Amino acid sequence: MRTTLDCIPCFIRQALDASRMISADPSFHESVVREVMLWAGRMNMDETPPLLAQQIHRRLRSLTGVADPYREVKDAANRTALALLPRLSFLVNESIDPLEAAVKFSIAGNLMDLGAKSGFSEDEIKESLACALDEEIAGDYGFFKEAVRAAERILYLADNAGEIVLDRLLIERLPLNKVTLAVRGAPVINDATAEDARVAGLHDMVAVVENGSDAPGTVISDCGDDFLKLYAESDMIIAKGQGNYETLSDENRPIFFLLKVKCGVIAERIGYPVGSVVVKRQDR
Amino acid sequence: MRTTLDCIPCFIRQALDASRMISADPSFHESVVREVMLWAGRMNMDETPPLLAQQIHRRLRSLTGVADPYREVKDAANRTALALLPRLSFLVNESIDPLEAAVKFSIAGNLMDLGAKSGFSEDEIKESLACALDEEIAGDYGFFKEAVRAAERILYLADNAGEIVLDRLLIERLPLNKVTLAVRGAPVINDATAEDARVAGLHDMVAVVENGSDAPGTVISDCGDDFLKLYAESDMIIAKGQGNYETLSDENRPIFFLLKVKCGVIAERIGYPVGSVVVKRQDR
Repeated sequence: MRTTLDCIPCFIRQALDASRMISADPSFHESVVREVMLWAGRMNMDETPPLLAQQIHRRLRSLTGVADPYREVKDAANRTALALLPRLSFLVNESIDPLEAAVKFSIAGNLMDLGAKSGFSEDEIKESLACALDEEIAGDYGFFKEAVRAAERILYLADNAGEIVLDRLLIERLPLNKVTLAVRGAPVINDATAEDARVAGLHDMVAVVENGSDAPGTVISDCGDDFLKLYAESDMIIAKGQGNYETLSDENRPIFFLLKVKCGVIAERIGYPVGSVVVKRQDR
Repeated sequence: MRTTLDCIPCFIRQALDASRMISADPSFHESVVREVMLWAGRMNMDETPPLLAQQIHRRLRSLTGVADPYREVKDAANRTALALLPRLSFLVNESIDPLEAAVKFSIAGNLMDLGAKSGFSEDEIKESLACALDEEIAGDYGFFKEAVRAAERILYLADNAGEIVLDRLLIERLPLNKVTLAVRGAPVINDATAEDARVAGLHDMVAVVENGSDAPGTVISDCGDDFLKLYAESDMIIAKGQGNYETLSDENRPIFFLLKVKCGVIAERIGYPVGSVVVKRQDR
């Protein structure tokens, strides 16, 4: 999908957040915000939001020489999610439809997104998970369940650190020998990389591939060959979060998008209001 | 107070909102956002946020030739508030402390602010008013009550259309012969002008003065002589809303700020969290 004018204030807020994460110097924050604005005033709105975010975050890393400014935040999110995992796993096992419960927890974990908002507290995460089973899934869960049963090769596109720990609940409900988990090829915002997959214990359960890109989404033209082969050959692709939706929603592939709707732009595009828990089958 | 970097995404969102209010042409919206960004990339952050917003909205009006783009929105907010007024007036009269109840409704009306957010629905207004009496006032209500009793000349600085109708509940509890109500000198965003004071029936109750400025706040250096005389001579100034707080919080005058805290920048500055209902006496 194209970038909308509503995305621009969000980019600037994101650049400001990131600059504060990297440095305590207000003059640095100001110079980053001014530079991003001058650059955003000339940007090509035909690109997807994650492609533009990729450029912003590359520039921030090159300005500061800090390769992974969000590493501490990601570690904290992983720790929080890991501490909750045993209890959530118990609740999934006790559910009438464990797959559905696992989908709900996995989407509740999509709250841990520092692209869409400035921050989240441990309490917010706990609250979101405590309510998760009571929320209805909007969209195509029935088709999703069918597809899981029928699929021969499943490619699971992770989204954020912390969230990836909760994805484990869902991945455990999939036929493990048919699943490959894809993570970002390099750090960007708080998106999950191979390190987060390892912390979540997913390397021991399924094949893990890096997508070769540092965009906060899946920009096909920027991904590596190993990933693209899997992407072409899989008969079910599970794509978590808004960034993957923004970059793949025009693709002609058997994708299920699992996400929490976090802004008006996505709400209008996907057809469900902000706050919705959505499983959306790609229209083809 | 100075403009913070956090204000910038909000300016851009505001410019986008206003451009959409004025025109249905996406290329116009885009050119406005791009222009505001290029301009904001060079702006002087030592100015207050309303001074910068004033410049943005002047430019928007000159680009389009529309003198009052928010007129319809303001009329709708006034109508909504007028319909609720009799019931709220009854509740104020029934209260143990009618002044306190009137302060609460007046601050609940501060929700109707299109500077701080993109929109508000009639339902949101009703809900905010329904909960208003249950919310605690943070800050200096005790001093406020005392000051109302002792004051000889009260200057009441209105904030937004719709909200000004609910201010009537509070103004009715003040010594009417000592009160002058000040409104903006010309339209900006959905701020209240003389027309809104008239619709609220306030012209028949108290003296009304225009402040001579089209800033969404009270920029002293931009205000007219009549207003400045009153401002200097009043021994109690009641200033509604964030815009008046942003422009007057460094002034050495006997001001009480009455507002709902609507963003993190104000929360940090005023010392109460977002969502708080605040009566704040100016520290002198």
